[in-house]
Amino acid sequence: MLETTTEFRVRYAETDQMGVVYHTNYLIWCEVGRTDLLRQLGATYAELEKRGVYLAVAEVGVRFLAAARYDDLIRVRTTLSKARSRAVRFAYVLENAETHEILARAETDLICLDREGSPRKLPAALKALLQSAADGATGEGTIGTNAGVDVVADA
Amino acid sequence: MLETTTEFRVRYAETDQMGVVYHTNYLIWCEVGRTDLLRQLGATYAELEKRGVYLAVAEVGVRFLAAARYDDLIRVRTTLSKARSRAVRFAYVLENAETHEILARAETDLICLDREGSPRKLPAALKALLQSAADGATGEGTIGTNAGVDVVADA
Amino acid sequence: MLETTTEFRVRYAETDQMGVVYHTNYLIWCEVGRTDLLRQLGATYAELEKRGVYLAVAEVGVRFLAAARYDDLIRVRTTLSKARSRAVRFAYVLENAETHEILARAETDLICLDREGSPRKLPAALKALLQSAADGATGEGTIGTNAGVDVVADA
Amino acid sequence: MLETTTEFRVRYAETDQMGVVYHTNYLIWCEVGRTDLLRQLGATYAELEKRGVYLAVAEVGVRFLAAARYDDLIRVRTTLSKARSRAVRFAYVLENAETHEILARAETDLICLDREGSPRKLPAALKALLQSAADGATGEGTIGTNAGVDVVADA
Repeated sequence: MLETTTEFRVRYAETDQMGVVYHTNYLIWCEVGRTDLLRQLGATYAELEKRGVYLAVAEVGVRFLAAARYDDLIRVRTTLSKARSRAVRFAYVLENAETHEILARAETDLICLDREGSPRKLPAALKALLQSAADGATGEGTIGTNAGVDVVADA
Repeated sequence: MLETTTEFRVRYAETDQMGVVYHTNYLIWCEVGRTDLLRQLGATYAELEKRGVYLAVAEVGVRFLAAARYDDLIRVRTTLSKARSRAVRFAYVLENAETHEILARAETDLICLDREGSPRKLPAALKALLQSAADGATGEGTIGTNAGVDVVADA
Repeated sequence: MLETTTEFRVRYAETDQMGVVYHTNYLIWCEVGRTDLLRQLGATYAELEKRGVYLAVAEVGVRFLAAARYDDLIRVRTTLSKARSRAVRFAYVLENAETHEILARAETDLICLDREGSPRKLPAALKALLQSAADGATGEGTIGTNAGVDVVADA
Repeated sequence: MLETTTEFRVRYAETDQMGVVYHTNYLIWCEVGRTDLLRQLGATYAELEKRGVYLAVAEVGVRFLAAARYDDLIRVRTTLSKARSRAVRFAYVLENAETHEILARAETDLICLDREGSPRKLPAALKALLQSAADGATGEGTIGTNAGVDVVADA
C-alpha cells in the first residue's frame, strides 16, 4: 500500500484564539496530502480536472487527538484505502514531524464527477492505478468501526 | 429539543474552482450555528471562554449531499444531541433556504477544556442548561449508525 | 452616492492566536459588502458572471485601525468610488456595529474580465448603473493621498 | 539587504470559482514569507510572541499582476524594507517559481504590541537585527510612490 508523506509548517492564519490550529484546517491539510499522493502516482489532480475527471468530497470523518500550533512542522501521511468504480477513500494520519505526536486521524470519501457535476465512473486506467495504490489496504478505514467513524459504509 | 436556525449567504471566498463551496466551509457554518444555539440558550460562547470554559472540537463527521454555490442563501439548523459531563455533541442540517434542498448533515463532538487546554468538567449550571436543550434528542445522531458516521461512540 | 450597509458577526474561524480577527478576513468582509452593494443596485454579481462579466481584484489597500473580536457585530459600509470603462473602485469602512468604533478603511480596485480571463469593457448599461451609484464620490479614495494609500492611481 | 525565498504549491482550498487563487490568500502567503525571513534572521516569530513581542498588521497594499492557479509552485521573495522603533515594513514579490511570471507585489506594515495589545517599542536587540536585514533597502517600498501604493507614509 502506497503511503505518501507531506510536510509543511503551520501558518499563523491557521490558528484561532484558543492558541491552536482551527480544526477545519486539518481537512485542508488532508487535501494537500491527497494531491501529493496523486502526484506520486503520476496522475496529478490538476491534470485530471483538465481531462474532465473531478473528485468531490462526499463524506469526511476526523478525530482530533492533539493540538497543532503555529510554526509546528506538520507531517501528513496519506494512503488510499479503497478505490471503487465511482468513489475513492483516502485515509490520513496527521502528526507533529518533530515530536511524532499524532494530531489527528481522518478519512475522506470522494466521488467522481464530470465537468457538469454529474456522477461518472472513474476512467478504467485511473481506477486500476488507484487500486494498485490501495493494494494491501484493509478498506476498513484507519479510524475503524469500533471508533464509530466509517465515513462511507458502501461508497 | 431546541433547534436554532441561522441564515447567511455564501461568500465568494468560500467557493473553489469546481464552482461550488469548498467542503471545509460547511464545518465553519456549523460553528456559526453552534454559536447561535448557545446564544439562544443565554450562554454566549464568547462569555464561556471569558469564564475559563473552552469547547474544543474533538471529532467531526460530515456527509455532503448537494453543492452550495456563491450567493446562495444557506440555512443551518443546529441541535444539541447529547450533553455529558465533559463533552457535548451538536448535530446540523445544512440546507438551501430558498429551495429547501438539504446540502449536508454533520455532527461535531466538543470536549470541555480549561484555560490551559486540560480537560475539565462542564460547570454544573451549564451542563444542566445544555441538557435541557438536548432534551428529547435521541442521542443517536442525525446521521445515524446505519449511515456509518457516529462521530463519538461514547464521548 | 450610494452607501450599502452589511452586518454580520465575527466567526471563531476568523480569529487567530493573537485573540483578534486575522487581518485578511477584513478583505473577505469587503467582498461581502461589495456583493451587497451590487445586489442593492439590482445587478447581482452572481448574475454578472453568468453573463460573462467578471470583476477581478487588481489592487487592495487596507489600513487597520482597531481589532475585531469573536462574536462582535461588524458593519461594513461600502461605496463605489469610481467607475470607468474597464475598472471599478470600491471603498469600505468597517466598524463595530455596537460601539461604532472604526476598525479599518479599505479600497479595492477591480478590473473587468471576460470568461477567458482577458480584459474587457464593462457592458454600457452596467457602467452607467455603476456610475450612478458612484455619483458624488470624490474618486479620491476614503484613505486619501496623504495617508499614502491610493490603490490605483489611474485605473 | 536580506531576501528570503519561500516556495510551496497552491492548495485547492485557495482557489475560487473564477478558477484562480482567491486574492486574500496572497496576503497569507506574505505571512509565510515574513515568518521565514524572521526564522532566517534567527528570531522566530513564535519565539517573539512567547517573549511578549507581537507584530500586528497595521496596513497592507497589494497589486495583483497575474493569476496563480491550483498546484502552481509559488515563490515568495520577502525583504524587510524598513525597521523603526515601533514598526516594521516588509515587501514581497510573489512569482510563479516555474515560469518566473510575477504574480503580485505587496507591502505590509506591522506595529509592535505587547501581550495586552498596547503599542510598545521593539526590543533594542531585535530592532538592531531587523535594521541589519533592512540595510540597503531604499525604504521607499517595492511598489513605489508613482504606483500609488505606499502602505505607511511614516510608520
